[in-house]
Order: sequence, then C-alpha cells, then structure tokens
Amino acid sequence: MPELRKDPITSRWVIVSTERGKRPSDFAAAPPPKQLGFCPFCPGNEDKTPPEIMAYRKDGGLPNRQGWQVRVVPNKFPALQIEGELDRQGDGIYDRMNGIGAHEVIIESPNHDDVLSDMPQDRVEDVLWAYRDRILDLRKDDRLRYILIFKNHGEQAGASLEHPHSQLIATPIVPKRAREEVDGAKAYFDYKERCIYCDIVRQELQQETRVIALNDEFVAIAPFASRFPFESWILPRAHEPFFQDAQKPDLVSCSQILKEVLGRMDQVLINPPYNYLIHNSPLQETEVNHYHWHLEIMPTLTKVAGFEWGTGFYINPVLPEDAAKYLRGASNAARRS
Amino acid sequence: MPELRKDPITSRWVIVSTERGKRPSDFAAAPPPKQLGFCPFCPGNEDKTPPEIMAYRKDGGLPNRQGWQVRVVPNKFPALQIEGELDRQGDGIYDRMNGIGAHEVIIESPNHDDVLSDMPQDRVEDVLWAYRDRILDLRKDDRLRYILIFKNHGEQAGASLEHPHSQLIATPIVPKRAREEVDGAKAYFDYKERCIYCDIVRQELQQETRVIALNDEFVAIAPFASRFPFESWILPRAHEPFFQDAQKPDLVSCSQILKEVLGRMDQVLINPPYNYLIHNSPLQETEVNHYHWHLEIMPTLTKVAGFEWGTGFYINPVLPEDAAKYLRGASNAARRS
Repeated sequence: MPELRKDPITSRWVIVSTERGKRPSDFAAAPPPKQLGFCPFCPGNEDKTPPEIMAYRKDGGLPNRQGWQVRVVPNKFPALQIEGELDRQGDGIYDRMNGIGAHEVIIESPNHDDVLSDMPQDRVEDVLWAYRDRILDLRKDDRLRYILIFKNHGEQAGASLEHPHSQLIATPIVPKRAREEVDGAKAYFDYKERCIYCDIVRQELQQETRVIALNDEFVAIAPFASRFPFESWILPRAHEPFFQDAQKPDLVSCSQILKEVLGRMDQVLINPPYNYLIHNSPLQETEVNHYHWHLEIMPTLTKVAGFEWGTGFYINPVLPEDAAKYLRGASNAARRS
Repeated sequence: MPELRKDPITSRWVIVSTERGKRPSDFAAAPPPKQLGFCPFCPGNEDKTPPEIMAYRKDGGLPNRQGWQVRVVPNKFPALQIEGELDRQGDGIYDRMNGIGAHEVIIESPNHDDVLSDMPQDRVEDVLWAYRDRILDLRKDDRLRYILIFKNHGEQAGASLEHPHSQLIATPIVPKRAREEVDGAKAYFDYKERCIYCDIVRQELQQETRVIALNDEFVAIAPFASRFPFESWILPRAHEPFFQDAQKPDLVSCSQILKEVLGRMDQVLINPPYNYLIHNSPLQETEVNHYHWHLEIMPTLTKVAGFEWGTGFYINPVLPEDAAKYLRGASNAARRS
C-alpha cells in the first residue's frame, strides 16, 4: 500500500510508492530501451492490463475484449489505491496517511501510433467524455477531495509507454498547488467580486497579443506570466468552475481548440513532448464562484534546474507574446495540412 | 533588461529573460553537441567571461589572469541584472517589475574535469567560502531580498557547461517557495516556541533510520517526506538562520559532509546528475529564530511530469529509509577508495 507523507515545514504531501520496486542500480542505468513489439494498451492485449473500469465500444461488445475506441483501466503500478480506510498517523513531528485514492489510465485510441493532434476531432471529444465520465463516477466517493487529469506525451515529458494515453489521479486531500490556485482566485473574488479567470479572458481578448486560438466557447492564450516557453492555457470563455459540468457543445468546442493548439505546437516546435493538465475545482467544494476550470499545456523544451526547485521562480527565455505570435502564425499551414 | 512578471492567481513570479534569444526551431532541435575543446571557464580564457567579481589566488596575481583556485564572474546571460532602478508597473490585472538582481557564476576549480566529490576537502571548503563572501557583499544592496546559491551538475540536471561551477541569483523579492518554507517554520515556532529544523535534527538523530552521515556540526538525512529518490538534506546540528554566519569550523565540517554525501551518491547511483541548493533566511529579516539554513541535494533520477506540475504533490518510488540505508552502506567502500 502506498503511503502519503507530509513535509512538516511546508505541509507538502509526497506519495511514497515503492511497488514499482527499483534498486539504486535501476536509476543509475540508462533508461530502458523502448519495448519493441509488445504494448499492453494495444487491442488484443486487454488481459495484460488490470480489468477495465469502462470503455466506449461502438457496437457494444464484451468488456476486456477488442472493439473499443477509448478504454479506462486502473494503473498497473498505482500511486494510490481505492481499497482501504483513510488512516492518519503521527510519528513524532511527522504525519503519514494511507495511500487511498485512484490512479487510472485513459487509453485514448486503439491505434498505437495515434497522436491527439492528428486524431479526428470526434475521437478527441470521446477522450474528453471519458475524463468527464470518470470524474462523475469517482466524485461519489466521499473520501476523495481532488481529481487531477493529466497527460504526459513523449518520453522527455515522463511518458513510459508510447501508446496514446492520459492519466487520472484522485487524492484524499486537495494538493497544495491546487489549493494555492483556488485560494488565490478566492482572494481576488473576495476583493473584486469577480472571477479572476473571467477577468483574464476579458483582458486577453481585448489585448489580443497573447491569444493563440479562439472559438465560441474557448480561448487559448500564452499566459502573461508563462513559466515555460510556449506554455498555453485553454479556458472556457464563460465562467465554469467544474470541468465535469461541461455539456455536449462545450466538449465539441474544447476538443476543437485542444486539437488546434496541439497541432500548432507540433508545427512550430516539431512534435514536442508535452504535459497537459486539467485544473479543476476541488470535488467537495460547492461554492466556487471564484474558480474557473482550464487546461494547461506545457511543452517540455527546457530543463527545470536548481533555481526553479529552490525558489518556485521560473526563468522563461521566450516572451509569451512571441510564443503566441509564432503559434498563431502556424495556423494556416496547420489547417491546410 | 529581463522582466519579472507576476501570475495574478498564485502570485508566482516569473523571469522573462529573452537575451539568450532563442527561436522556436532552437527548441525543436536536438540539444547542441558538447563544445569540444573550448571552455570559457578554463584558465587562459579569463577574457571570455565578463570581468571577474572576485577570485581566490594563492599567490596574489592580477584579476582576470590565470592562477586562481575559485573565480566568480557575472553570468554572461544573466536572468537578472544589477544595474537599474526597481520599477513596478501594472498592465490591467497584471504586474511586472524590472529584472533587477544579480546572477553570478562561481567557478569551483581551474581544472575542467574536477568534480566536487573528488576534490580535496580544503578546495571544497574554498567554494563554500566563496558562497559566503558573495552573500556578505551582496547583502549590502538593500534592493535585494533573497540570495539563492545552487549547483546544477550534469546536463540532465540543467548544467549547460561541463566545467565545475555553481550559481548565485539574488532577487528583489523573496521567492514564493522560500517564503513558504520560512512561513511554515514560523507557524511551527509560534506554536511550539522551537525551531522545526532543530526538532527534525533531534528526531532524526534519535530514530537514526534516515541518517546518511554525521559529524560534529552537521547531519545529512534522507528527509521523511522526500520528493525525489535519494533526496538528501545537510543541516547544521545547532540552530543557525544564516549560511553567511558560518565560521571556519562550520565550513570545514560542512565541506567534509558535503563531499562525503556527494561521494556516496556517486558510488550508489554511479555519478548521477544532481542539483543542490542552499536554503537560507531572507536577507533583510533579522528575527529568524524560526528558520535554520540547510543544503538540499536532489539527484536527477526521475522525470517530473504532469502530476507533479499539476499538484506540487510528488511520487517518490524509493522509501527515504531505504535511500539512507543504501547511502550509509556505501560509506566504507567510499572511504577505502
């Protein structure tokens, strides 16, 4: 069972999950060569993952068999596990907690070589529906306080398997950085009686210099204080605290703009590795006039080094305005292809 | 002039420093091959760096000539610059500030192939003296609020030059993560009337399971809530807010334990890339009974991916107790070599 440990100074929680059982020599060695030939996420290998949690199958069909378009399975090496009781213990000045939660994998396509930016838009939309369905199911578990949906694309961005997939982690506490954002937005709301993300959307649409893409429901921007070169945020233009409250037209628009932004990045940065994350309201907080879900995309172009670790203070070598200009410039070519 | 920008939600500052002037294609390309033959930090190339700020020369000798043991120069591509006035401006809901500060490079040895863990202890001590001297000089500038000393060792840890060096960045604001630690320690002090780091040292020395190395003045531990496999902290055993108040016996002991811990890591993890950082009290805060400087070492063994970015919640695959055991186990062999 994984264990949660709390840093007594900063209250930062860490998941200690040794079930992936590595010895020091495993870290010292070069990264393992890509598995050739065998992929546990490919159709036909359904029995090589834990039994599926859900799947979209066009023509029905049995679970854990071929014929799916999107398939959700528990992570084989979960950082957190759904079984067990929440149990907090002290150890002198330290705190620990059982690693209760959920860690799931959303397999985005049956095709090993698919990439989101090149998939038909309705299949990207299906991936978003899968995210939504899993959140709606997991939020019934009142031990869970937060759900993070994220994607690591490419080995440099931390993906250990090539087959296109996203992940979901549900935690029994609201993680520090999520709390910080929600609290920051609340402080602004308490002062101004307006949502800060709504104000950002308004200012960005007016100034235009950091806008990357736009449709009726969403806007994609290079944020004013981007931590990373070509960091991009996709925000609903109307106030919406919860991703899981998105309706059909929202997910249609969201899949359109997500595909567009990823496609432009692929063009300008030549298929970069990236991470994206859905920043969402905490599960059990219903008064969230102040928080506004959004999706943050961070291409993995620079290395995070000592300075960033020590300070949480990032050095970005590209002006967000320039990043937006480059990405906007890629649009016509991208549409033509 | 670099620019500081503040994220309006989390109040996180970002340095936008485009003087390294990269175009998107520079990011897309593979990392540049190692510079063969030429190194601006090697003796004889003193004119290839900005003029030196200070240097230790055994036999005196002229600045910017050979004969130095440790040499400090301004970073050629500084993230922050010492010239200019602090100037804060708004832009709608956003804030920006001039990039005032300092960004220096501490060249640790004239020998290109030296590594700290293998250098004679008195030369490691000289590097620590250089850190101290630079802080004592820069703290006279009352625009500066914080000084971070850090080292990126190895390309994977963000070092762009091989020649052994550390860096110093002085900032006009106390960075968020430093503030968070100092405030966390203060909350504990207000409640318990004891320094939390002193309590950590006490508990670690008593429990012993996470102790890596020990001498009269310092202890090295694998912290209870380690974010990374084999993360190690070196703490003064007695309460000491400021690194720059260290005296000769402190720096002797500190260089001994730093060399020992790095040497054990080299053994167990086979010369890993790493970052280390000195966590120090903010410059202009004199009432710091609650903060206790220390040095944090993080070998670069895993990739930080979507989950960590989204939550500030780390997954560590190695129990800190196991990491400490492995590192302690390396000691005899290390001493023999």
